[in-house]
Amino acid sequence: MKVKRSTSHSSRRSSMRAMGSTRSVLSRRSQRTSRHSRTSVRATDEELNFEPPTKCHCQRCQMRFPTQQMIDERERTFKNEPAVLRAVDDQVDDVIQDLAQMVKFKSVSVEPKFLLESCLALDWVANRLANLKFKTYEHLIPDDPVNCFREPHQKVLFARYFSSPTKPTLLIYGHLDVLPAKPDCWLSDPFELVLKDGLAYGRGVTSGKGMLVGWIHAIECWLQVNEDLPINVKFIVDMLHEVGSTGLQDYVRAKSDFFLDVDYMVFDVNSWVNNDRPVIACSLTGWAYFGVEVRGANKSLESGLAGGLVFEPMIDLCHLMNSLVNDEHEIQIPRIENNVRRLTTPEWHLLESAGFRAYEYKEELYVRRLRHDANKVEVLQSRWCKPSLTMHGVEGADSRPACTRILPMQVVSKFSIRLVPDQDVEQIHCAVREYMMQIRNELNLGTSIAVHLIDYMEPICWSTESKLIKALMRAVGEVYQKDPITTQGIPVCLPIANVLCKLVKKPIILMPFYKRRDRHQQENECIEEDNLMRHTKSCASLLFELSFLRTKCKCDVINKYCNLRGVKEKLDADRGYDLPVPPKRNLLVSFFKLKHKENPAPMKAPKRNSVKKFLCFPFKMKKSSKKRPSAAPK
Amino acid sequence: MKVKRSTSHSSRRSSMRAMGSTRSVLSRRSQRTSRHSRTSVRATDEELNFEPPTKCHCQRCQMRFPTQQMIDERERTFKNEPAVLRAVDDQVDDVIQDLAQMVKFKSVSVEPKFLLESCLALDWVANRLANLKFKTYEHLIPDDPVNCFREPHQKVLFARYFSSPTKPTLLIYGHLDVLPAKPDCWLSDPFELVLKDGLAYGRGVTSGKGMLVGWIHAIECWLQVNEDLPINVKFIVDMLHEVGSTGLQDYVRAKSDFFLDVDYMVFDVNSWVNNDRPVIACSLTGWAYFGVEVRGANKSLESGLAGGLVFEPMIDLCHLMNSLVNDEHEIQIPRIENNVRRLTTPEWHLLESAGFRAYEYKEELYVRRLRHDANKVEVLQSRWCKPSLTMHGVEGADSRPACTRILPMQVVSKFSIRLVPDQDVEQIHCAVREYMMQIRNELNLGTSIAVHLIDYMEPICWSTESKLIKALMRAVGEVYQKDPITTQGIPVCLPIANVLCKLVKKPIILMPFYKRRDRHQQENECIEEDNLMRHTKSCASLLFELSFLRTKCKCDVINKYCNLRGVKEKLDADRGYDLPVPPKRNLLVSFFKLKHKENPAPMKAPKRNSVKKFLCFPFKMKKSSKKRPSAAPK
Repeated sequence: MKVKRSTSHSSRRSSMRAMGSTRSVLSRRSQRTSRHSRTSVRATDEELNFEPPTKCHCQRCQMRFPTQQMIDERERTFKNEPAVLRAVDDQVDDVIQDLAQMVKFKSVSVEPKFLLESCLALDWVANRLANLKFKTYEHLIPDDPVNCFREPHQKVLFARYFSSPTKPTLLIYGHLDVLPAKPDCWLSDPFELVLKDGLAYGRGVTSGKGMLVGWIHAIECWLQVNEDLPINVKFIVDMLHEVGSTGLQDYVRAKSDFFLDVDYMVFDVNSWVNNDRPVIACSLTGWAYFGVEVRGANKSLESGLAGGLVFEPMIDLCHLMNSLVNDEHEIQIPRIENNVRRLTTPEWHLLESAGFRAYEYKEELYVRRLRHDANKVEVLQSRWCKPSLTMHGVEGADSRPACTRILPMQVVSKFSIRLVPDQDVEQIHCAVREYMMQIRNELNLGTSIAVHLIDYMEPICWSTESKLIKALMRAVGEVYQKDPITTQGIPVCLPIANVLCKLVKKPIILMPFYKRRDRHQQENECIEEDNLMRHTKSCASLLFELSFLRTKCKCDVINKYCNLRGVKEKLDADRGYDLPVPPKRNLLVSFFKLKHKENPAPMKAPKRNSVKKFLCFPFKMKKSSKKRPSAAPK
Repeated sequence: MKVKRSTSHSSRRSSMRAMGSTRSVLSRRSQRTSRHSRTSVRATDEELNFEPPTKCHCQRCQMRFPTQQMIDERERTFKNEPAVLRAVDDQVDDVIQDLAQMVKFKSVSVEPKFLLESCLALDWVANRLANLKFKTYEHLIPDDPVNCFREPHQKVLFARYFSSPTKPTLLIYGHLDVLPAKPDCWLSDPFELVLKDGLAYGRGVTSGKGMLVGWIHAIECWLQVNEDLPINVKFIVDMLHEVGSTGLQDYVRAKSDFFLDVDYMVFDVNSWVNNDRPVIACSLTGWAYFGVEVRGANKSLESGLAGGLVFEPMIDLCHLMNSLVNDEHEIQIPRIENNVRRLTTPEWHLLESAGFRAYEYKEELYVRRLRHDANKVEVLQSRWCKPSLTMHGVEGADSRPACTRILPMQVVSKFSIRLVPDQDVEQIHCAVREYMMQIRNELNLGTSIAVHLIDYMEPICWSTESKLIKALMRAVGEVYQKDPITTQGIPVCLPIANVLCKLVKKPIILMPFYKRRDRHQQENECIEEDNLMRHTKSCASLLFELSFLRTKCKCDVINKYCNLRGVKEKLDADRGYDLPVPPKRNLLVSFFKLKHKENPAPMKAPKRNSVKKFLCFPFKMKKSSKKRPSAAPK
């Protein structure tokens, strides 16, 4: 099904023209927030060499009264988009070459010996982004007190491309680490990209590496054709994704100013259900991680001496855990599925059409049976759309491969429940606790128990009708020439997205990349070359589509940013004014030169306010605007 | 109740006189074995500098035709025994001082940081034994490939006192390591011996340290009074007892010649049930250590991706383990208690009189209930006399204190069954396997399971009527002035005894030392001073009683030993002939000097056979005896 491209284009054009009209609320809000924005935070970077610019009051910024330059720029972006997509098509060889380069890095984060490879891969990405006018910096992740002095360090890459304060900012999360690959299970070397029958084989092509290469080339094409990106772009590139993104919480907090101006976050996910149509998932699974602690005596005993005398915690633990699930592995906790969102008819049909074959799966895992073996929809529903309970292990007991005679007296069984929209963690916690206590009373246990909610993540679900999702649908639909399917009922499992969503508190987009992975560690991982190129194109298209979304201006953020960092000159460069700027003294002069050259007579600016003007136009109206708020507010 | 000391003495005297009469069988057996004893084993010690003596034929050794010297020596031993026991009484202060010295060493083997302390303690014991004319040597225990070069080394002490080939040899197992002690739970410093109200407080006084000091002083008193021990004595002193006697299997094999001439092994155990009468246990518990392996897929999965799809091994494992025991922690495996030896009426009464108070035990362990809380005999029976099942932990699952999302696909649950006389390991293994398979079929599991017998030790039980036990009863009864109780139905849990019994294959004695320990890690561990002294006395008494037991002569062993080691001169020293022996050349000369000085004219010995004669008298009859075997044997 073809997307009606002309209508979407025209609607965007009209929205573009209406841009100047409804900004008063936004500008007033930004005015208010700017008052509180001068918190004194100690900057840690070397960038502190620059003096901060003067305060920005932001009564009227370019977003409210767009300049001709802005309008021209948008027009140019609009015209250039088809050329960008064509440019992507021409870059096939480069994409493959870059992917081959990426695949070569044995960045297996699970095995610490490959840490150097991961660092090299990260450097490679950092160089690649730096060549695309990105400012990059690395944040070292403290490992643990013992290893913190060991080279190489674990790190995460931050990169940003700043085009204009009037444009929205997209944060792209990428990762370049992969899961281990056993070479003897592969037909080719897992760390060499092999092309065969239109497929690209290599470890990581369907996960972080493939996704990252797509974004890099989408950006490269935009810069080639348009010389500027349609929006501001930021990157976080992780090399510890597969081990749970170590240090994420810390660096998001430490680098909070990096996330200040972010409008949207995008994650590439394997959300396709079949090969026919891309699926745009609008929900994420959550989890609740419980520990059931059973305590007997106040110390460990010896089985030979005390066995038979005391009630043993491990035995009681088995009784308790046993009551959680029945023989068919169905969760026995009452009310657990109360709030689970029901599948809609289209979702049901989607699962029916899924490219999942139980027998293949069983063969590859060497298992005899799956749960709900007979019905594909039930299998997939129980796998993706329903809560499931997994027992992870027992803490405090003897887990080493040796025979000891210890009778453990304090054991914690750990299990997690995968949550799906619209379950609520607090409700689940209550249900589990009540059920456990009930079972304890029924069994009349001689030991004491406690139920802990050790960790949790709320499942997230968002509207499929928002402008953001519509933009994504247009971008994807245009590239694949098929209407993508949106779904809330088939959530995606991507813990990093939950965490970042919780920490950064910005709307997220799940960019469909590839089919849902069947297994955790795929052998002979491969992706169609065509799919790879289409993904790159949809990335490019998404950058374009997002530039037409209405967002808050970034004047206050820039002000805050400047105050925090004092990076006046860097801002110039970020905006594309690639001048050899002499520090401080000649700043204003050079700015005027530029203004007169590029934009002959946009507006008359008084000399004394030039820095403010540079940030938020126009400052000459400042005095009159001071009167206005009292007249206009209500 | 007083032991009739006079009768036992007179019976021993008569048996002593009959010694010469019934030795023909023994000597003939030793003759036969000596033929095969010249196996060529590479000696590893520095002792190889000596040339081996010529072959011993042992047709007539001193045991068959005891010399006057031997008879005199025995008479002297017999007369000296009461003096030895009095000497022990006089040594109270020395015993306490030595114990205080021992307690000071923080030889906590569970914590590797105290390894040096353990080594110092071992050196102290080695010095102490060397001063008592013991030959000592240390055997290094390889830790693991990583730590094998690290100082200090784990080691075990071997010591031997060789008095005569005609005397039996006792192997004493001692250990000097202790369990950790938390100082804040103690009223005094656990590593300082504190005397208060007739009690000696300190870590280890009721276990290895107290036992070892008793033996050392018993030996010291014998040497003081009698100048020789009534029997040959060997020691193994372990510093890794509490961590399972690392390397035991290896060093028993490596030092097999050390165990060649051992007749009996003695272990001190806490076998007393009440404070009234010492209990001599004649049985050891065994154990069977099982691993139930449940395997799902061929690799671990991620709970977020595969949860709800596959049958999870951990859940099935819980179902399986749950079926092993019911809510009351009773073992559900059929026929498990089939062969358990029933308590006799005296044993029942013994348990009834036990100094065990459930409420004290519960208070100290902070537990609310014990199994069979109401009935003391049932509590103790289930604790000591019945099989019990302990679950130790799960291998292959996540046991670290962190939240991971791994869905483990191959897990092994480890549990052990304590075995009591007369259970049979093979039978128990069959019962467990059958039951597990039956449960698997009943549950219709989606995973595959396997039952492994990972480790086992047969329970051991021996006669309470043997001469060995009678000797022990006399020794203990004489000291405590009470008839000790023998029991087979209340076994002792001492894995090291099972292992040594299996490896060395010699009868064992369990020397009653103190009350059965209630807890694994006692706070304020203490023992009555009186008990400590009585134990020392019963050790001294046991050495005496054992010297009257009839054992095989050690001529063949000595021959073998000499062939293996060539330690001619050392043997001299061991026998008490404390000569400065010039090596090789002057050997025969010095021997003759000795003979003529100490024992003026015992028997005329031809010059050429002097070495043989030294080992087994008399060799001048060799020619005639060569004819005899053909005439006499049947």
